[in-house]
Amino acid sequence: MIFRFTITHKAPNSRARIGILETPHGRVQTPVFTPVGTKATVKAMTPEELLELGAELLLANTFHLSLRPGAEVIYQLGGLHKFMHWDHPLLTDSGGFQIFSLSALNKIDDDGVTFKSPLDGSLHRLTPEKAVEIQNLLGADIIMVLDECIPYPCEIDYARYSTQLTLSWARRSQAAHKNPAQALFGIVQGSVYPELRIESARETTALDFPGYAIGGLSVGEPKPLMYEMLDLSVSHLPEDKPRYLMGVGTPQDFIAAVDHGVDMFDCVVPTRNARNGKLYTSGGTINIKNAAYTADAGPVDPHCSCYTCRHYSRAYLRHLFLSKEILAARLNTVHNLAFFLSLMRQIRQAIATNSWDTFKGQIQCQLPSDNSSHHPPSG
Amino acid sequence: MIFRFTITHKAPNSRARIGILETPHGRVQTPVFTPVGTKATVKAMTPEELLELGAELLLANTFHLSLRPGAEVIYQLGGLHKFMHWDHPLLTDSGGFQIFSLSALNKIDDDGVTFKSPLDGSLHRLTPEKAVEIQNLLGADIIMVLDECIPYPCEIDYARYSTQLTLSWARRSQAAHKNPAQALFGIVQGSVYPELRIESARETTALDFPGYAIGGLSVGEPKPLMYEMLDLSVSHLPEDKPRYLMGVGTPQDFIAAVDHGVDMFDCVVPTRNARNGKLYTSGGTINIKNAAYTADAGPVDPHCSCYTCRHYSRAYLRHLFLSKEILAARLNTVHNLAFFLSLMRQIRQAIATNSWDTFKGQIQCQLPSDNSSHHPPSG
Repeated sequence: MIFRFTITHKAPNSRARIGILETPHGRVQTPVFTPVGTKATVKAMTPEELLELGAELLLANTFHLSLRPGAEVIYQLGGLHKFMHWDHPLLTDSGGFQIFSLSALNKIDDDGVTFKSPLDGSLHRLTPEKAVEIQNLLGADIIMVLDECIPYPCEIDYARYSTQLTLSWARRSQAAHKNPAQALFGIVQGSVYPELRIESARETTALDFPGYAIGGLSVGEPKPLMYEMLDLSVSHLPEDKPRYLMGVGTPQDFIAAVDHGVDMFDCVVPTRNARNGKLYTSGGTINIKNAAYTADAGPVDPHCSCYTCRHYSRAYLRHLFLSKEILAARLNTVHNLAFFLSLMRQIRQAIATNSWDTFKGQIQCQLPSDNSSHHPPSG
Repeated sequence: MIFRFTITHKAPNSRARIGILETPHGRVQTPVFTPVGTKATVKAMTPEELLELGAELLLANTFHLSLRPGAEVIYQLGGLHKFMHWDHPLLTDSGGFQIFSLSALNKIDDDGVTFKSPLDGSLHRLTPEKAVEIQNLLGADIIMVLDECIPYPCEIDYARYSTQLTLSWARRSQAAHKNPAQALFGIVQGSVYPELRIESARETTALDFPGYAIGGLSVGEPKPLMYEMLDLSVSHLPEDKPRYLMGVGTPQDFIAAVDHGVDMFDCVVPTRNARNGKLYTSGGTINIKNAAYTADAGPVDPHCSCYTCRHYSRAYLRHLFLSKEILAARLNTVHNLAFFLSLMRQIRQAIATNSWDTFKGQIQCQLPSDNSSHHPPSG
């Protein structure tokens, strides 16, 4: 079997577990944080730098790549791995999240969605079959069924309709999937309604996908409600398949979601915040443009050993940021990704050494408080 | 002696020569191309990448750095080398070129220049003494006297006045220079008037600087006039001191100027053009956004072995450029700097092996024709 998920250890008194995802392009240790490379590039980074930071899985965006340069072009050039010079595991989302985040440009119906290109306003049609066909052309190791990410808040009638729509699209996506070397994941929706979350998890599971995503969370709902829905969704997913919490999130979210049994995450938080000068440190987040750093000779985080912290002062990073220098985006992104990927390594280590309970208690107090966990539009 | 220039070989039938510049931060092989790091960063690049490409000397900008973050801040942080993580030879210009390129913001008088900050409109005063004081604080290995870069065209009366002004500023800069670990270079001006060029070269030489720059060329004058003035200037400079042609230029300019006996060059041409998608190849320049490259699987230049050409297709670079991705600026800059630095290595090799005459004839036919040699504002 080309795609295999093996749970190697479980934490006592928790759903947290570590495992190995095997894909045609290599292994991924879970829980995994997946840097977002929307347009076939993790903004400001080379693949070699991502590898050095410990990234094992990258995400690219079906919606954006199908508009430019086009899935056929990438297929002709040997597929997405070769196109972006990343010969390691890759995941593509289905475009479902863009139906949500670019809703002003979209019109949804039972069969699929018609949308205006944000590039030139031209009309395009995305169906479950088309989303899978595009992803077959791109050739990522993990691909996603087309779904509708339900906004929050949402009336129960629409949530019920949309949850069934996503289920019917999951069946059609599965039927259309042609490449056994790519693992097609199902997506659980259901908004914030317990019965819909349970129904979605059960019926998606009945389709027997090699992995399951939990979608439609961190879209504006209160955190307790998010975790309640996460708990419900995971409870009705099979133990032996990877669980992927889409578009989440912050360090706090990782701890809570891993505790709920989640194995995979992706989010633009570290990379986008880096470009905006918001840096994660063991003592909290800092805004590098703060005047307090004008002549600060220290590194961003004295406990960090990333390239940025080894060689550059806060004063220099502030200068680069104020000067709108490209190197600012680079050095800040290196640091934030180092923080996120290192946290995920610590999480795996804590589970492996049966110290998850202690670790999660300690780290929750240390982690930067952060209210920006709202699912940001990908990009 | 901390600063030493040794000519190691001369080409027969030409003024071309190779040599070694020894500085407190290491050796520089000449003729040398100096990437421009205006604001203490060569845009989009890390120091490690510049080293790997073969850069031995970088230029930073006194004018811009004195406005932000300020020379005192950089001094407090351990100097410019440490600030920008470049423990190798550095050169700072004096700010004289900005008197020219930002002339709308400047008012010049015999004693110095008053200028409005392009950052916030605040008034600042630059004198020869101040320019040297700032450069002493920054701590580059090679620093420059304050000069006025005369615009083209210019009436002979103003050119005569300005040439004398630069000479008096050279004397005052020399008197103000306090740090024997930094080599202060004189600058020859004289516009396009032979007698002024000769007078400037002779009188600047009389002050006995450790090196001489030739300024005020490639500012709009026709190429033949530029080379005539270059020839005149070099003819009246001492043989045993390095000659630095400021702000020049294109590959064609390098060949001609090396043939006239120039040892040092700096220019934003490769880095700025890279960010605008204009790439240098052994077959000419290409514009990477050209639709012809939409599905082009080949590298920018099949004869180039840089990181960009080893791993990425023209199609991918076009996609990144159209998507305004930061990686586009990075990969394009790597390639263009590889081209410029490789050309300079070939030039040195040709002189070393007594094949300069043959080489310059061949390379002139191969080099990309390029009309963008006009001295671009630094940055």
